[in-house]
Amino acid sequence: MKNEDSLHKLFYPETVTLIGASSEKGKVGNDVLYNLIQGGFKGKLYPVNPKRDEILGVKVYHDISDIPDKIDLAVFVVSPKIIIKLLPEVVAKGCKNAIIISAGFKEVGREGALLEKELKALLKKLEVRALGPNCLGIISTNSNLNASFAAEMPKKGKISFISQSGALLTAVLDWSMNEGIGFSKIISLGNKADISEIDAIEFLGNDPETDVILGYIEGVVDGQKFIKAASKVTKKKPILLIKAGSTSAGARAASSHTGTLAGSDKAFTTAFKQSGIIRIHEIDEIFELAKGFSQPSRPKGNRLAVITNAGGPGIISADASEKNGINLPPPHKNTIEKLKSVLPPTAALFNPIDIIGDAKEDRYENTLNIIKDDKNFDGILVILTPQSMTDATKVAESIVNFAKTTDKPVFTSFMGGELVDEGIKLLIENDIPNFQFPDVAIKSFSQMVKYAKFQKKPIPKVKKFNDVDKEKVKKVFEESRKKGIFDLSETMVTEVFEAYGFRFPDSKLVKTLDDAVIEAENIGFPLVMKIASPDILHKSDIGGVVVNINNLEDVVKAFMKITANARRTFPKAIILGVEMQKMIKEGKEIILGMTKDSQFGPLIMFGLGGIYVEVLKDVSFRVAPISEIDAGEMVRDINSYALLSGVRGEKSIDFDELHEMIMRLSQLVTDFPEIVELDLNPVKLLPKGEISYALDARLTLSSE
Amino acid sequence: MKNEDSLHKLFYPETVTLIGASSEKGKVGNDVLYNLIQGGFKGKLYPVNPKRDEILGVKVYHDISDIPDKIDLAVFVVSPKIIIKLLPEVVAKGCKNAIIISAGFKEVGREGALLEKELKALLKKLEVRALGPNCLGIISTNSNLNASFAAEMPKKGKISFISQSGALLTAVLDWSMNEGIGFSKIISLGNKADISEIDAIEFLGNDPETDVILGYIEGVVDGQKFIKAASKVTKKKPILLIKAGSTSAGARAASSHTGTLAGSDKAFTTAFKQSGIIRIHEIDEIFELAKGFSQPSRPKGNRLAVITNAGGPGIISADASEKNGINLPPPHKNTIEKLKSVLPPTAALFNPIDIIGDAKEDRYENTLNIIKDDKNFDGILVILTPQSMTDATKVAESIVNFAKTTDKPVFTSFMGGELVDEGIKLLIENDIPNFQFPDVAIKSFSQMVKYAKFQKKPIPKVKKFNDVDKEKVKKVFEESRKKGIFDLSETMVTEVFEAYGFRFPDSKLVKTLDDAVIEAENIGFPLVMKIASPDILHKSDIGGVVVNINNLEDVVKAFMKITANARRTFPKAIILGVEMQKMIKEGKEIILGMTKDSQFGPLIMFGLGGIYVEVLKDVSFRVAPISEIDAGEMVRDINSYALLSGVRGEKSIDFDELHEMIMRLSQLVTDFPEIVELDLNPVKLLPKGEISYALDARLTLSSE
Repeated sequence: MKNEDSLHKLFYPETVTLIGASSEKGKVGNDVLYNLIQGGFKGKLYPVNPKRDEILGVKVYHDISDIPDKIDLAVFVVSPKIIIKLLPEVVAKGCKNAIIISAGFKEVGREGALLEKELKALLKKLEVRALGPNCLGIISTNSNLNASFAAEMPKKGKISFISQSGALLTAVLDWSMNEGIGFSKIISLGNKADISEIDAIEFLGNDPETDVILGYIEGVVDGQKFIKAASKVTKKKPILLIKAGSTSAGARAASSHTGTLAGSDKAFTTAFKQSGIIRIHEIDEIFELAKGFSQPSRPKGNRLAVITNAGGPGIISADASEKNGINLPPPHKNTIEKLKSVLPPTAALFNPIDIIGDAKEDRYENTLNIIKDDKNFDGILVILTPQSMTDATKVAESIVNFAKTTDKPVFTSFMGGELVDEGIKLLIENDIPNFQFPDVAIKSFSQMVKYAKFQKKPIPKVKKFNDVDKEKVKKVFEESRKKGIFDLSETMVTEVFEAYGFRFPDSKLVKTLDDAVIEAENIGFPLVMKIASPDILHKSDIGGVVVNINNLEDVVKAFMKITANARRTFPKAIILGVEMQKMIKEGKEIILGMTKDSQFGPLIMFGLGGIYVEVLKDVSFRVAPISEIDAGEMVRDINSYALLSGVRGEKSIDFDELHEMIMRLSQLVTDFPEIVELDLNPVKLLPKGEISYALDARLTLSSE
Repeated sequence: MKNEDSLHKLFYPETVTLIGASSEKGKVGNDVLYNLIQGGFKGKLYPVNPKRDEILGVKVYHDISDIPDKIDLAVFVVSPKIIIKLLPEVVAKGCKNAIIISAGFKEVGREGALLEKELKALLKKLEVRALGPNCLGIISTNSNLNASFAAEMPKKGKISFISQSGALLTAVLDWSMNEGIGFSKIISLGNKADISEIDAIEFLGNDPETDVILGYIEGVVDGQKFIKAASKVTKKKPILLIKAGSTSAGARAASSHTGTLAGSDKAFTTAFKQSGIIRIHEIDEIFELAKGFSQPSRPKGNRLAVITNAGGPGIISADASEKNGINLPPPHKNTIEKLKSVLPPTAALFNPIDIIGDAKEDRYENTLNIIKDDKNFDGILVILTPQSMTDATKVAESIVNFAKTTDKPVFTSFMGGELVDEGIKLLIENDIPNFQFPDVAIKSFSQMVKYAKFQKKPIPKVKKFNDVDKEKVKKVFEESRKKGIFDLSETMVTEVFEAYGFRFPDSKLVKTLDDAVIEAENIGFPLVMKIASPDILHKSDIGGVVVNINNLEDVVKAFMKITANARRTFPKAIILGVEMQKMIKEGKEIILGMTKDSQFGPLIMFGLGGIYVEVLKDVSFRVAPISEIDAGEMVRDINSYALLSGVRGEKSIDFDELHEMIMRLSQLVTDFPEIVELDLNPVKLLPKGEISYALDARLTLSSE
């Protein structure tokens, strides 16, 4: 059964039982019952408590079996052991959905974790979809269902909110009541024993009563599934998430909080980007930035018309536009001519269009009607400051009427307090997003533009290379593991990458000085010589590498030096010999690598070699598998990108080849989840038509 | 007379005349009179209007000469020409302060600009200090003076606000009324014909009723004076400014708005940093970030204790701390022991300290009292989410009492709406800054930490080098200008920089091939040869430079190539010959440069050479004159800083030498304001003990 079907009755039940209804004020079992009643739930309510006959005017059943009806939704506020005992009983009544508000599970330690494991197994066995445990519950405004112990029932709206922190949800809810924000569904995830953020996002993605999904999460249960689910939903509606525990300090707090192992921040940033999720960094911004999305129009581009009755806010808008990648082009010349005919001579006709402080509603109206059909604009922001001639309410009326005549997003910044309050109310009632200050309005518009662009992006298709030799790699890994070697030897690493289409310069392993001299003449100068030992990973650090060898005399010196250094530093190392390689002088050095993220799996890294990675940390990441489009974006993401396309008269590298390398690497790590880490460092990239080589590589297998 | 004296009566007059009082509702002359009365001004009010005897119950005078009293402050709401006519009359009554609200000056074009010029001259002649024209007026809550046409009188407080945009001021004022923010003084600058942001900042800096200065500016009248004035004030109290017109788009809007030529954003960022001004980028943040400053305690360091009754907000705090450079260390081990004795076993004792959802005021109180004496902390943030057991008002009471017992800054984030409103009110009344969400609280704390650090920084002293040859430079400039050459020749540039202590490699100008061969042997290999021509600035671009010349044969080739290229590309250029220079291979390439900012004057730039400047734009700026401390900060400001101190086994450059170069450059451009632009590119820096050379330089003089 699909999520949207299996979770439907969680939000739209006909009958609800509350196991653990209490008559004692202040107890959760009393709060939840009160909220169910107070919320105006239209279905049937069956509270259960063995010792009571009636609470808050509602008949109470002593036993689940006494309930004379099927049960759609069971809400539990009793202790963990009792929940486990009673679950089969509600299932016997046809119940397939539960909300487990009770705490006392994995958040309290080892014993609780065992109970949660038992609960999980039971839910699976009984095929019950359950929210929690250790959660606040849910609110579904359209079915008048407040199955939570949150104190308030918010007004109806098109925003749904998911939260992994109950306390945060309470606070945000209480605050949003003051702000007049409407909600469709509110979901407190708790410990996520069954229903996770993935289920919630999938459900809300298909929910016709949700236009925008907001959320606060601290981690995800399955990174790869999360990306897949979110990518689908974001094609239909926006998801804005706060991911907390993002920094190392934050992550420490997270792990002590819900026992979630917070994924590294880079993996989250990357995963959000790949799946089109808008990441919000400050709590107060989430509703501000969501405002723009709660009206139906989507901008076709980033060109905004700003109409203002004051210069200062116009300047602020221009600044904010530049900062957020929004374009304020001048109006079309015909528009300018028309504007001249209705605006005073002191008006600024370019963008921002300053219609001057004494503007009344008619001047706003005229300007809007002229701007409307100008193809230079994808959206319109109307700014109003309360001046002596301004009637904010009348201007709001004009805007409301105007907005009905255009499919471009129209939004406003009525700045001020009391003097503009009534006008703002009118705007909000008519789904026109209003912002306290114009810079926030523009930030929100910029998110809309980014999102609209993401929506247009084709669904990433991961290319499969059929020329790879998977069997070969399998064999190499088996052989290495059989020997107990998890950091692969140079020869093995080369075999693995070559099997996936990477090239290394010709190379020979020699064991004696005589062989070294012979091979040197075979390969030709200049040469690089490196120690070959499975026990020595960082060869340069111990003097195990000599580059730029140009004659036989230097070959002899290098051989002696390398082997002596290796034996001195690692007396116990297995030394296979010395690797001799043609030296590649030309080309741009890059690094490709992969590390395993605990939540998202293979995280592929790309960056320019040397100081760009080491000092400037100028690298980009993507979660594998990586499509061609994503590979391209990944390459363009680094700051030093311009260096690849050639500066100071250099030739551009072959970008197609680089993208292919990234995709081949993605295929390798996807085919072999046992790879926990790898580096191709450096790879020398050359212009189109020339062959690029990886010069060195390492690869580590999981020892489990 | 100092600003604080000359402006005193602007804010604390005993008698005020309003020239242009009007009986017509909606007219500015009526609004201002109404506000003066309504504001509760305790001094004497003398409205002037030749046609009225009484307005709003106040006696009106037909003529200034009729006023039977001296005048402290004259407020003008009449047309520009009448103001100019009447100014001498108020001065005759002893008036030395005026507020010119009237518009119709430079903001309306050429004619207005002429009137403003006339007004300016008259003010100077009459020794009147005036605000405006084209402004909203002022509000001074402590003297109950509302000499403005802003609709509202805010409550009293310790914040003063300066604004260059009247409309923005109205809107912010109206909004802040809803937020309950108190003000000391509100100043609308208008066209700044006389009183500028500099005067206002100086006055407020000495105003005992102002603790925090906030402002919105679009430009400054004199950058160097602004830095001097602000630097003095920020040693005493914080200044938080929004500078609009910061981006190129914003600047375009600014110049069309008030005729102010907005300085480049880099110059402002730099000037603010140098003078300790906190730059705010979003309007809604200015009051949030100011909150922390409005309580008297200043943090001694960046170590914060976070106490919370919920995990999520704790994680958010930890994230925000890491992002804003705030440290959340664990409590001292004694503190942890004590905490154990008062907190439940599920509490998190490390930082953030989670005292769990069922915490009541006593648990908050106990925790605070234990934390108080822990030397690991410089400040305390208390977070409260409304949970069923929480009484926000009682917790607020505990915090208020606690705050009196410590000199560390205590601030709160009571999250929510109705459920916490009463508690928040109590906190605010007792000067405890409360923030809607903890991340904003931490941002504010981080600004306090930064500011406290700035306050401790010694006042920058600019070192004067006495070994410079100022006369020599003067002579070179005179000579060059006499010839009509403003882009100095290579020889002249070298002379100038050498006179200020810079070194260039030995170099010879040769005119013939024969001379080139002779000089090559004198200087020694390797060599660099460059075309010498005052008309060719970018020598490499036209093939006018050959490097790495190692033998006589190459000298000949280079000479032919360079002169041929120069003649081909610039047939009309004056060619002085070819410059021969010892080639300096070693050293870190850096760039030093200077460009003249229209508002702040000489803006010195520093960066690493090559791609760091060209591609990564990794440079830092300071406004000259530059102290040694500022030079050090400037060098550390670039991202690639680590490369200077040596990575991959390289030696560190000589930082003292680099700082000295910056200070010498600063002295040169300060001594000679006629330099409009210069570049030392590259300079090769070497480790301590070795001599660093500038390899190339250019310098442009003003042609005015």
